[in-house]
Amino acid sequence: MKERVQVVENIFSANDRLATENRARLDQHRVLGLNLMASPGAGKTSLIERTLAVLKEEMRVAVVDGDVATSIDADRAAAAGATAIQINTGGECHLDAVMLQGALRELPLASLDLLIVENVGNLICPASFSLGTHFSVLIASVPEGDDKPYKYPAMYRGVDALVINKIDLRPYVEFNLEYFQAGVEMLNPGLVTLPLSCRTGEGLEAWLAWVRGQLKELRHG
Amino acid sequence: MKERVQVVENIFSANDRLATENRARLDQHRVLGLNLMASPGAGKTSLIERTLAVLKEEMRVAVVDGDVATSIDADRAAAAGATAIQINTGGECHLDAVMLQGALRELPLASLDLLIVENVGNLICPASFSLGTHFSVLIASVPEGDDKPYKYPAMYRGVDALVINKIDLRPYVEFNLEYFQAGVEMLNPGLVTLPLSCRTGEGLEAWLAWVRGQLKELRHG
Repeated sequence: MKERVQVVENIFSANDRLATENRARLDQHRVLGLNLMASPGAGKTSLIERTLAVLKEEMRVAVVDGDVATSIDADRAAAAGATAIQINTGGECHLDAVMLQGALRELPLASLDLLIVENVGNLICPASFSLGTHFSVLIASVPEGDDKPYKYPAMYRGVDALVINKIDLRPYVEFNLEYFQAGVEMLNPGLVTLPLSCRTGEGLEAWLAWVRGQLKELRHG
Repeated sequence: MKERVQVVENIFSANDRLATENRARLDQHRVLGLNLMASPGAGKTSLIERTLAVLKEEMRVAVVDGDVATSIDADRAAAAGATAIQINTGGECHLDAVMLQGALRELPLASLDLLIVENVGNLICPASFSLGTHFSVLIASVPEGDDKPYKYPAMYRGVDALVINKIDLRPYVEFNLEYFQAGVEMLNPGLVTLPLSCRTGEGLEAWLAWVRGQLKELRHG
């Protein structure tokens, strides 16, 4: 196993170097980069659609979609008005910095304001690979259950903001918000938490304000 | 990357060899082994609780729970009446045959009928690692959305039965069952599909009958 450990360490350090390069390119063009992560079906693509519906009137947005197969999500992002690039990971369980670097080469960075990266649906592997974006955003969802922070601590520990999607389903499922939030607070004290429903639109305004605020900070901060 | 590819190939073939050994041990003791896989929060642990509530009166059941952290699931399985073993994968995104081999050593196989393995919540990585169980069972859930077969084809292609959990939520979410099932049929024609709700109990009898049928087949088939 020693050989494998060495190989894995090399992969991580090469990834970090490329992530730093990606960040420099985003900063050079003052493009805000967000890395959206979640388990399958938590609502990453729906949140992107909702976000584009409003923000495409205010800023120029591109979406990079990572999936093990298909271009369903990139097609939805393009239909919602973004410049969209699909990264097919060919079975890999996460995006990494080299994949994003390839996508950045294809994008007109000089004429963008916001880059949303939709990572592969997975609560484990994406947490280990920095992409170089400015913020990592985790999208949890109410029907997934309130024990997820306890069960996927690396993911909850590493993110800069937490969206809790599908709050409209709270009457129909067991979800103890206090238990969930106690787990989050233990792992990531003071984490920005944005409960919302992509279905009903409740709570979206706070999310949009957060995105606008980060872009403003990048531009004028 | 060549070195890494070689290492990964070695890992897969070593895993397959150990999976064959695990299967031989289960067969020797005529213990039916099920490998439950799903994304986080689809309801693996709830299905195990529901299954134990009925089947523990008819057969002797053990549960092996894989998680990247905590023993929440094994504690729930033990509380529901099973001999339960927790495998903490230490961050790994899937169980593998060597982890199960360790657990089998701890279990009283000669006095068991059914072994349920609860894999790590993940729709990608567990699909690549055989454990040696007799059947792989995927648990989908309605709020995850109807596009999951298209987006996670390797997982849907490789399983022997499909549970669709949380059907009680159908009135409250978008879920086109025909679109979902067309994707499943394309990848895995004729796959046994068991819609149910662990919350209301609807559909559970068909699942329990499937488990009983597989055990009977193993014993007398």
